[in-house]
Amino acid sequence: MKIALAQQDYHIGNFEENGRKIIEAVRKAKANGVDLILFPELAVCGYPPRDFLEFKDFIRLCDEVVANIAKETQGIGVIVGSPSINPVPEGKDLFNSAYFLLDGKIERVVHKALLPTYDVFDEYRYFEPGRDFSVIEYKGKKIALTVCEDLWNVGNENPMYVTCPMDVLTDQAPDFIANISASPFDYRHAADRIHVLKANTQRYNVPVFYVNHVGAQTELIFDGGSLVLDAKGRVVEELPYFEEAYREYDLEELSSPSNAGKPDNVLPKEKIALIHDALVLGIKDYFRKLGFKKAILGLSGGIDSALVTVLAARALGPENVWPIMLPSQFSSDHSVTDSEKLCANLGIKVDKIAIEEPFQAFLGALQPHFKDLPFGIAEENMQARSRAVILMALSNKFGHILLNTSNKSEAAVGYGTLYGDMCGGISVIGDVYKTEAYQLAEYINRNPEVIPRNIITKPPSAELRPNQKDSDSLPEYDILDQVLHLYIEQRKGPQEIIELGFDEALVKRILRLVNINEYKRHQTPPILRISPKAFGMGRRMPIVGKYLG
Amino acid sequence: MKIALAQQDYHIGNFEENGRKIIEAVRKAKANGVDLILFPELAVCGYPPRDFLEFKDFIRLCDEVVANIAKETQGIGVIVGSPSINPVPEGKDLFNSAYFLLDGKIERVVHKALLPTYDVFDEYRYFEPGRDFSVIEYKGKKIALTVCEDLWNVGNENPMYVTCPMDVLTDQAPDFIANISASPFDYRHAADRIHVLKANTQRYNVPVFYVNHVGAQTELIFDGGSLVLDAKGRVVEELPYFEEAYREYDLEELSSPSNAGKPDNVLPKEKIALIHDALVLGIKDYFRKLGFKKAILGLSGGIDSALVTVLAARALGPENVWPIMLPSQFSSDHSVTDSEKLCANLGIKVDKIAIEEPFQAFLGALQPHFKDLPFGIAEENMQARSRAVILMALSNKFGHILLNTSNKSEAAVGYGTLYGDMCGGISVIGDVYKTEAYQLAEYINRNPEVIPRNIITKPPSAELRPNQKDSDSLPEYDILDQVLHLYIEQRKGPQEIIELGFDEALVKRILRLVNINEYKRHQTPPILRISPKAFGMGRRMPIVGKYLG
Repeated sequence: MKIALAQQDYHIGNFEENGRKIIEAVRKAKANGVDLILFPELAVCGYPPRDFLEFKDFIRLCDEVVANIAKETQGIGVIVGSPSINPVPEGKDLFNSAYFLLDGKIERVVHKALLPTYDVFDEYRYFEPGRDFSVIEYKGKKIALTVCEDLWNVGNENPMYVTCPMDVLTDQAPDFIANISASPFDYRHAADRIHVLKANTQRYNVPVFYVNHVGAQTELIFDGGSLVLDAKGRVVEELPYFEEAYREYDLEELSSPSNAGKPDNVLPKEKIALIHDALVLGIKDYFRKLGFKKAILGLSGGIDSALVTVLAARALGPENVWPIMLPSQFSSDHSVTDSEKLCANLGIKVDKIAIEEPFQAFLGALQPHFKDLPFGIAEENMQARSRAVILMALSNKFGHILLNTSNKSEAAVGYGTLYGDMCGGISVIGDVYKTEAYQLAEYINRNPEVIPRNIITKPPSAELRPNQKDSDSLPEYDILDQVLHLYIEQRKGPQEIIELGFDEALVKRILRLVNINEYKRHQTPPILRISPKAFGMGRRMPIVGKYLG
Repeated sequence: MKIALAQQDYHIGNFEENGRKIIEAVRKAKANGVDLILFPELAVCGYPPRDFLEFKDFIRLCDEVVANIAKETQGIGVIVGSPSINPVPEGKDLFNSAYFLLDGKIERVVHKALLPTYDVFDEYRYFEPGRDFSVIEYKGKKIALTVCEDLWNVGNENPMYVTCPMDVLTDQAPDFIANISASPFDYRHAADRIHVLKANTQRYNVPVFYVNHVGAQTELIFDGGSLVLDAKGRVVEELPYFEEAYREYDLEELSSPSNAGKPDNVLPKEKIALIHDALVLGIKDYFRKLGFKKAILGLSGGIDSALVTVLAARALGPENVWPIMLPSQFSSDHSVTDSEKLCANLGIKVDKIAIEEPFQAFLGALQPHFKDLPFGIAEENMQARSRAVILMALSNKFGHILLNTSNKSEAAVGYGTLYGDMCGGISVIGDVYKTEAYQLAEYINRNPEVIPRNIITKPPSAELRPNQKDSDSLPEYDILDQVLHLYIEQRKGPQEIIELGFDEALVKRILRLVNINEYKRHQTPPILRISPKAFGMGRRMPIVGKYLG
């Protein structure tokens, strides 16, 4: 049996584009004599459709695309994800389904049983879990058809569900597992995915065909990395990362004796390289899917905005990135010269607009109230906000999207100005800790140097008052990032972190800063997610709360 | 049996305050000879604790409070909500539980079975559903103890769950139902609540004691309105709205023959009055729980900012509200005079800061790029953003929270400036349609007039260019709000709305505006929720999506 995987980049709610892509791949597979082609989970509408699923009209459009795909299935089996309507009133109105289409008809609809409802996932918000499991018989083979999470309840010490669909299906002696997925990228996910699929083949002793989305949907980046494993758990192939792909396999050849002893055929993975590629795709798809071409951003002379400029230039082309330097009286000379050098390296045009006059005008307007109160946070924020007004004016006038350049360390402790440097359509490195930003810069610079070394080596500064350094207000980033990682990614409480050897007062101060700045993060742009726990839809915290606050 | 209800206002994660309140009520009840006292769902930690629940340290603190409450229960039964740890690895790590405490011990822990996971609710994100149901025997009575949603699967045409705990419990012949709840307010909810509880008494023929939270937690406002129904479904009492309350009942008296034929004892409810009171409580609790006293806001001369000024003055006291008029060259004279009259009526001080100089400074700074391009959206937004910089500078300097004054109609169609008039710590009327804002103004003005009539009667205008009117860009609000309500609250698609008689082009234009402005709403402050479908946590939409966009 010849089986194809189509790893594609869909656009949520763009039924015309999604349907066309799927049908093109079906036609190609049919022409190649493929027996069965797999498309990802909810491919028809894109993932995650979120509350669009609550509109009957949206479900009607999904059904139309499924019907159109079915028309193309003379002589070829197609497995594709789309929502389906729960026929009984009890329970949620929809299932998250895998359709098996054949010979112009919907042959079977299999419902996802394990509905991820944690981190960025909200599936039980929309879907009733499937409860009936039986294999699909097709051309003499029995297919255990599963949807994404359905395979994830094995090999865990702390399983999140009380059922396991494959434990039921295995009694019917399937010949292989087909799994259609929508698994978003994080820098740890690729390894987890291989681990879980291996655990499945080892438990059930059948090959697995796993097909994933690729492409970004606002904050969520799908890496592709679809997989084929043989019955012994060997990775036969891992599909490319961050790009569309189409592959065909012969089921019988998968476990041929000639493969015995061969190692896993997996792509090399390096955390920082993966993050780099993910962010480039994240920017690219955000612009393409919104119908924009050009980005604008403020270039401070620091590492964060330099990094975002490089990533944007790689995603959109240097000609589509417009960095603006917005110096104030507190900006150092090297801020401008370093920025100019960066832009020269990238071959992009940079402009300079001083904020002194608007800043002074604000000071003048506020004088009757500020009187002779000392210069402080209010005046610092006014500078950041004056920059934002200028950048947004250019964005509004010329149709560029403003890129936000805050990093995760700053976002965590609220070291940023709301409606100032926290503005933007999308936050590019808001899930990248400062220490990781340096690693990304070194990765970008490995050959040739793109980011001038002085940008990397100078002490970080917001330059909002004379001789300001980040370290005046914050712990050193290597300590800060460790504590943040323990609190945010690992969800350790203050006592657990202190017991690891960190200073008690410091830990309490950092955790308090994280919690009392929830109000700022609530109003920031969506953040491209590259870690297992990003700010945004995957981390939902009360604003009015007292815990550690 | 004497049963007490304690309708209290908790603060999420403020274990010291919540524990103290609960223990005070237990002591009072004990002194009054009460046999059993009920506190709301997750009273110990406040509702909703959101991802704080993922911290073991947070759960440990909940357990500590439960243990402290238990110590107070010599001779009195206490039912109180708190999370509890799932003892088996399979399934989610926690239950949403009702603790029955007696004589210093945890006598029983009952787990919520129906976990709301829709609109603003995320309970399956954290909790495993309870699956074992049995009554609690106490002083010769059998208590059917349930948590909130557990009673909500009756009387619906489209039940959201496949199980119904009371259908099991009723076989054990309970004497009454105790239901501990966390049901947030919307203007329709009080009626729904009574309807559902009546359906329960009619189905199971036992009295119901229902205790709810009161108080606001950021966007969610809990109205209280706890209820006691007799076995015939008569409402014996409805506790007050929007304030704490404590009541005692004699179980035996509830269904005494002397009550036969009496009507429901329910409070009169009027939608606009409820919204008014909810918003006042929403503002009050937001400030109190964050530890702030004073509000600042921009006063434009229009109805929205006038309304927010009145609501804030009622919530915080007139002395704690600081309205600022920020006229530009496009502001009409009546904007200032009307605003001054409003503030005189309220007895509050108002200040005026012109934005002309910062606006001109920005125009000057941008001249090399804007050249002689015509005045447009960019220039309009620059004015709104200049106002925001001034308001935020005052907020930062003097420790006031900026109140956002956008209404729901504007927020829906994106008629507002991101980082301009869309700024603020909390959006007061972001869930109030423009047509409802007029109704609120009339309600406030019923006696005596507070909001000058000219503010209510003048045509709405953003005053960002000469002679601008909202109706230049938007349909008339009475039509707009009807279409928005059908799309947002009722989740009708374009075809269904058009079939109701609305113009096709208009419907498509409005729905498109709603969808393409998701990016703006993503960055707005939390919105006090008063409708069944507010923007924010209860409505989760893709930003990068094509459906109707």
